[in-house]
Amino acid sequence: MFVHTVFFWLKHPESQADHDALRAGLGSLKEITDISAAYVGTPAETRRPVIDHSYDFSITFVFADKAAHDTYQEHPIHLKFVDTCAHLWTRVQVYDAVG
Amino acid sequence: MFVHTVFFWLKHPESQADHDALRAGLGSLKEITDISAAYVGTPAETRRPVIDHSYDFSITFVFADKAAHDTYQEHPIHLKFVDTCAHLWTRVQVYDAVG
Repeated sequence: MFVHTVFFWLKHPESQADHDALRAGLGSLKEITDISAAYVGTPAETRRPVIDHSYDFSITFVFADKAAHDTYQEHPIHLKFVDTCAHLWTRVQVYDAVG
Repeated sequence: MFVHTVFFWLKHPESQADHDALRAGLGSLKEITDISAAYVGTPAETRRPVIDHSYDFSITFVFADKAAHDTYQEHPIHLKFVDTCAHLWTRVQVYDAVG
């Protein structure tokens, strides 16, 4: 199993249009059939010192293995997403885990 | 849907015994039936500037909703895990997302 987790910080978090555009872009990624399970989220209302809730959007995409993840990275829908949406964020933080 | 993601940095990453103990502790959490999907992992071999691969273990636990997550937090198996394993880590970083 390969879990690909990404947190996005918007360049203009005050812009509802940017929120909507990134949400739509992230939603488009779910069409990629190499993904076994896809979760797109926003920060929960939990608050503890160990919780980072500063991000605007997160994705957790589960793949069968690294090969499926690598295919996803090069998938036209993913490449189009990066091309269309990269200007919206100021930072992304990625964690890839295998288990 | 509620996705609870935690990254753990071991106090003594050079200790195989500590790796084994934390892995066993994290594995025990999977018995908690409030969790809809449970992934325990270690850093993948992906390397890009945006990827943080400095942690030793990760968990991604998916819950139906925040109520299920809250029940998990207070579950005896989870409390026992924290009691047994907290001395093993030097840092935890939590991200909770809803979507």
